[in-house]
Amino acid sequence: MNSTIELLLSHRSVRRFKPEPVTDEALDVMIRSAQMASSSSNMQAYSIIRVSDPEKRSRIRLVTGQQYYVEQAPLFLVFCADLMRLETACRMQGAPLRAEGIEPFLVASVDAALAAQNAAVAAEALGLGICYIGSIRNDPEEVTRVLELPPLVYPVFGMCIGHPDQEPAGRPRLPIEAVLHTDRYDASLYEEQLERYDAVMRDYYRERTGGKKDTSWSEEMAAKHAAPQRTGLKPYLRDRGFDV
Amino acid sequence: MNSTIELLLSHRSVRRFKPEPVTDEALDVMIRSAQMASSSSNMQAYSIIRVSDPEKRSRIRLVTGQQYYVEQAPLFLVFCADLMRLETACRMQGAPLRAEGIEPFLVASVDAALAAQNAAVAAEALGLGICYIGSIRNDPEEVTRVLELPPLVYPVFGMCIGHPDQEPAGRPRLPIEAVLHTDRYDASLYEEQLERYDAVMRDYYRERTGGKKDTSWSEEMAAKHAAPQRTGLKPYLRDRGFDV
Repeated sequence: MNSTIELLLSHRSVRRFKPEPVTDEALDVMIRSAQMASSSSNMQAYSIIRVSDPEKRSRIRLVTGQQYYVEQAPLFLVFCADLMRLETACRMQGAPLRAEGIEPFLVASVDAALAAQNAAVAAEALGLGICYIGSIRNDPEEVTRVLELPPLVYPVFGMCIGHPDQEPAGRPRLPIEAVLHTDRYDASLYEEQLERYDAVMRDYYRERTGGKKDTSWSEEMAAKHAAPQRTGLKPYLRDRGFDV
Repeated sequence: MNSTIELLLSHRSVRRFKPEPVTDEALDVMIRSAQMASSSSNMQAYSIIRVSDPEKRSRIRLVTGQQYYVEQAPLFLVFCADLMRLETACRMQGAPLRAEGIEPFLVASVDAALAAQNAAVAAEALGLGICYIGSIRNDPEEVTRVLELPPLVYPVFGMCIGHPDQEPAGRPRLPIEAVLHTDRYDASLYEEQLERYDAVMRDYYRERTGGKKDTSWSEEMAAKHAAPQRTGLKPYLRDRGFDV
């Protein structure tokens, strides 16, 4: 099979890294690959912040809770949705940016995600491992202070990168039929499909934890979503100038 | 250089396709690659709808305006942010999904984007060309009707896929220094960096249009953002159950 396809299909998140640094050349390749991702109307409404300062790493790690790999990874990037650079471009033309509505927020968030996924694939193509860190949104105000983010810029997620010091098993995904529909959305077989996936995931959890974690996907999802998630995010975003 | 890196760096959006179909095997590889992208807490909060029915294609093309490649591309996919399948999982456990706040909306939108970018890279690895179609958000209600989307599912963007029948020039990106920051956000050189990019883009537009399009990036951005974009999106999303 095509080596790129093989690479995509073999993705696993890596959370333990060798101390060996990621070279500037590798970072450069990752960022240039990120930049080549598609961008809505060529807005390129994202920025990437490399966090090198150990004190800043440590403050961001605190935001994420127990994700110590945020401190330990040789390279840690924060992907931001960024309308501020776009505002600068508009101001250079004497025209204010009209950022009303949720569309600019969505475009910037999606631009950041497409760029990040290209960076992730590039990193893995170089033999590195990566892990997305969504938990920086636990306290976006603190991340904003640490990285001195201006208004109209918010941290979507972080990414740990380095030479893998573990070989985690691949996490099984939903049955393809539960994800791919033709011509119309079809939920008629969801219960059956999810039950099938629950059984697969129960085996996966058991195996990964030596029998200690005996749960299923739907149990995990129900537990996680029994309480609202990160309700501080909307007021934070509004405060930063996003019309969400 | 690594063939995957080469592939990422040579991305161009393709809008003209040969009539040759995209095989089911290629679609399968694309979707499996999409599924292997990272997903926030393994929620996999997205669905992909393959639109084969010519009448449905034509109705979606009307939503996008003049983007006739939406009708002509051998394969057209719609990537949806999907909290409905997650709700089904929670319901199977007798626990209601608490979808308050903007976090679930963001997670689902980002999950859809990461999956889509993997699908795009897989397609290009198979020698296919792709183009994202954000303009399906011009009229998300119509797309929702056409694809019979349930509540808690919305169309983020479409993607045209097929064998390229054009070799468009690569579109230059922002200078890397304008996108990559270290330890703190630094906008101090934006005007200079954007002026430099403006000059590059003016040459690119001129060349691509035989001298007819004489504009710059910041002029394009200012013109586009002089009016608010897609202000119907937020009321639509609220109507579909997203707490945005």
